Amino acid sequence: MSDAGDPNLFRILISTDNHLGVWEKDETRRDDSFRAFEEVLQLAVETRADAVLLGGDLFHENKPSRATLVKAIQLLAKYCLNDRPVRFRVVSDQSVNFVAGRVNFENPNLNVGLPVFTIHGNHDDPAGQDSLSAVDILSQTGLVNYFGKHPLTGTGAARITLSPVLLEKGSTRICLYGLGNIRDERLGRSFQTPGCVQWQRPAPSPGYPPDGWVNLLVLHQNRVAHSALGKACVREEHLPAFLDLAVWGHEHECRPDPVSLKGEGEARYVVQPGSTVATALSEGESRPKHALLLEVRGAQFRLQKFRLRSVRPFVFGGVALREVRPPLLPEDTEGVTRFLTGKIQEMISRAAAANPPPPLPAPSDGSPSASASPASLLPLIRLRVDYTGFSTVNSQRLGQRFVGRVANPQDMLLWTKAASRKLKGEGDSSSAAAAYGEAGDGEGGGFLRPDALDQSRIEDLIRQHLGSNALEVLPDDELAVALHNFVEKDDKNALVQCIEAALEETRNAALAAQLAAEEAAEAAAAAAAVAG
Amino acid sequence: MSDAGDPNLFRILISTDNHLGVWEKDETRRDDSFRAFEEVLQLAVETRADAVLLGGDLFHENKPSRATLVKAIQLLAKYCLNDRPVRFRVVSDQSVNFVAGRVNFENPNLNVGLPVFTIHGNHDDPAGQDSLSAVDILSQTGLVNYFGKHPLTGTGAARITLSPVLLEKGSTRICLYGLGNIRDERLGRSFQTPGCVQWQRPAPSPGYPPDGWVNLLVLHQNRVAHSALGKACVREEHLPAFLDLAVWGHEHECRPDPVSLKGEGEARYVVQPGSTVATALSEGESRPKHALLLEVRGAQFRLQKFRLRSVRPFVFGGVALREVRPPLLPEDTEGVTRFLTGKIQEMISRAAAANPPPPLPAPSDGSPSASASPASLLPLIRLRVDYTGFSTVNSQRLGQRFVGRVANPQDMLLWTKAASRKLKGEGDSSSAAAAYGEAGDGEGGGFLRPDALDQSRIEDLIRQHLGSNALEVLPDDELAVALHNFVEKDDKNALVQCIEAALEETRNAALAAQLAAEEAAEAAAAAAAVAG
Repeated sequence: MSDAGDPNLFRILISTDNHLGVWEKDETRRDDSFRAFEEVLQLAVETRADAVLLGGDLFHENKPSRATLVKAIQLLAKYCLNDRPVRFRVVSDQSVNFVAGRVNFENPNLNVGLPVFTIHGNHDDPAGQDSLSAVDILSQTGLVNYFGKHPLTGTGAARITLSPVLLEKGSTRICLYGLGNIRDERLGRSFQTPGCVQWQRPAPSPGYPPDGWVNLLVLHQNRVAHSALGKACVREEHLPAFLDLAVWGHEHECRPDPVSLKGEGEARYVVQPGSTVATALSEGESRPKHALLLEVRGAQFRLQKFRLRSVRPFVFGGVALREVRPPLLPEDTEGVTRFLTGKIQEMISRAAAANPPPPLPAPSDGSPSASASPASLLPLIRLRVDYTGFSTVNSQRLGQRFVGRVANPQDMLLWTKAASRKLKGEGDSSSAAAAYGEAGDGEGGGFLRPDALDQSRIEDLIRQHLGSNALEVLPDDELAVALHNFVEKDDKNALVQCIEAALEETRNAALAAQLAAEEAAEAAAAAAAVAG
Repeated sequence: MSDAGDPNLFRILISTDNHLGVWEKDETRRDDSFRAFEEVLQLAVETRADAVLLGGDLFHENKPSRATLVKAIQLLAKYCLNDRPVRFRVVSDQSVNFVAGRVNFENPNLNVGLPVFTIHGNHDDPAGQDSLSAVDILSQTGLVNYFGKHPLTGTGAARITLSPVLLEKGSTRICLYGLGNIRDERLGRSFQTPGCVQWQRPAPSPGYPPDGWVNLLVLHQNRVAHSALGKACVREEHLPAFLDLAVWGHEHECRPDPVSLKGEGEARYVVQPGSTVATALSEGESRPKHALLLEVRGAQFRLQKFRLRSVRPFVFGGVALREVRPPLLPEDTEGVTRFLTGKIQEMISRAAAANPPPPLPAPSDGSPSASASPASLLPLIRLRVDYTGFSTVNSQRLGQRFVGRVANPQDMLLWTKAASRKLKGEGDSSSAAAAYGEAGDGEGGGFLRPDALDQSRIEDLIRQHLGSNALEVLPDDELAVALHNFVEKDDKNALVQCIEAALEETRNAALAAQLAAEEAAEAAAAAAAVAG
């Protein structure tokens, strides 16, 4: 399937969690997200992909800065607007599929050569009164095709109808489902409620046999169930048997090789492209980052992985002080510091020796771009130190020695204790620290996942402080969402809106109850009159 | 000059201070700015204008909400992207003129039928580390041509070179200067410093005689000097004698008829289009709002005014309680309330009777748009009550009676005292209240202008609290700007950046001084050696 000129070969470059704008306040790392995203777009051009598919969190912030918006627009305009012919078409109802109502390459006022399809993630999810995402801004400009945005109403299990985008190139047909991020608890409940999630299938018609489609899903959710979320999340088993491939966004660790989906059905695969920029200093983020090229011909498909060459080197390590040989003495702070300094120096050498492949050729217009060699980039270094039986040493002072040699001198060391790695819950200081990290990845095996921790905690706190029956008018679920949006997304009206909506609902319910009571009374009176 | 098909007739629709997004949190007024801006764009299409020229403050906020950005993009895409041929060209260096490096209708990937040219105002001025404006986002998408952005460095009088955009349609040539908002004090100082402001002129060349151009300037500054700013602002006398017409943005009162510019030079005119939406309940904002059509043929030009028909009615009035006949009694609160209620009712009737011209025809695609009849819009009512010798009555309670009948029941009354109207400065409660209003317009004759008040106050406060000589490292001027950006523009890094820049400058100066001292010492030693 290597002939890009094959009229039946559909090639889609896949990437996710590009987090444009992350670290924009960091002198050293401010360009990292843009450099990696530019490399993804360059790869799409080089591999002659028909389209790009993104799995959400294109933006790190729900309200991206002006600079981030401007750079995102510049990059997309540079690579996606050109005279290259688009060799596939959309055969489904575009007004149902796309937020903008039509696919961008059919806009007669825009010259799209590389169409980008994207869902939203949890970072750039729809918020505020108009339920708009940062992706809506790009969608209105016609630079991306935003799909998989499902309007949610009411509370509880959301009713979701997945209408696929039907794509056709020659005799190859792709049925693409998009599911932009919805809070795990809510979406999990939908999947567990029979009939709540509807998967629309292409209707069989002359020339379109029902089994003639390769069925893809792109979603942006937590993948691994964990204690805090319990059953309340999407599980692989929930996904329908007819799916051929699920592209799983949100999880930042790159696992570029497709694996079989759990549950019934054969030849069902899942692939986890991972983020293109490390948003947290976790072990998962330190794995090599890739973009994937999906090639589909007829019912056959395969994935090719391309290691991103512009990504800042990141070496993650772990050490338990009490296991070091020859042994360290807990009271010998100097010795411990010397040992850790040596360990970090060794990691820096490893970062340099990782010897990444040569940079991409410069883009045709000669502008500065993603092709900066990673060798010129200071590495990220993260060392998890189990200091059981020891005390910590001054991380700040140790970091000072590495200014100019690593990208993150101020937070190279992560202090943990053996015991704390088994604790799950409050009072665990490591987990509390991890809660400030990135959603979708944890600090190694035994730790709680930060996002989950946050979400369950807000609701738990509300329940804990107000009592389970105290909230009769305000739904604690929506209050939790509102509080989350207020704190995390800077949505100043979230709480007011939540309260007003609840009051309105209560008022209506009270009115309805009153009317029902009056009707009942009238009926009773009438019955009594008849009886009399 | 009425034949729009005339190949030498250049037609430019002019509007300014559209303040997209103002009142977006107000249930009643949230669409006002968009409705008016859409009417402006419709007018441009109807009058077959070659281009639109905006005078700044297209956005009300420096960080517009997602909803405002999306709506702005939708409107511009709807009216500006189409197959209509552009019948003029840009003959100056586009990379010098435009922030995006080229005019949008020469972008081969975009189908521009109605080019929009705009400068920035004080609301959407460049801010933050990258010195980006909200207009930059639109400029990158190619929906507007952003010009008149002058990079400012250092402190004090800024050196500004005005490179005009040279436009040519048939034999008609327009030399268009743009000057995006710069703080009045700073710009005023530049104009007063000889050689600081350079006006580049088109070089005479074969076929282009030097006097063959109509010279336009669009700027966005305070127009009337007032006590608080003193001499530190742009005066009409500063503008060069060769200008034919200055389009003055920032001032919200619409004065659609051109008047002669003060100062030397003949046939120099200034026109003040005013805002398209009332951002403050001031007398100036209550005047009828217009867009202007500039028609240029050869060296001749004229302006036509078009009253905007989608603008919410606004009636402004004033009354002095002690002058009412038959007299009111200060202790008769009921009587005063009755009188004011009657007055407001009369103003509401006047708003209805204003009987604006019929709405515009619906746009061709039948979508809902600017053509909502103003008759269906609740009016804005503002009554300035001089209560000298009386006490105020409960405005809230009085406002309650007009809910559903006026757009602003909560702030219809503005309480003033005769004495306070002569006071200028602190301790004047009316002025303090006015300071929360819109820049560029005052609450009638005797009042201080809010913007000016704010700016001078911040600096005054800094000087007052720190003493005039206390700030040796931190320049109080820049500190004032940083504070302003921090408070007004939600720029969280403004203060940190200001301080870091100042420290850097001081460090460099100290270093330079030390080097100079060392060199001097060496020279002295060498001289001593020679002498010895």
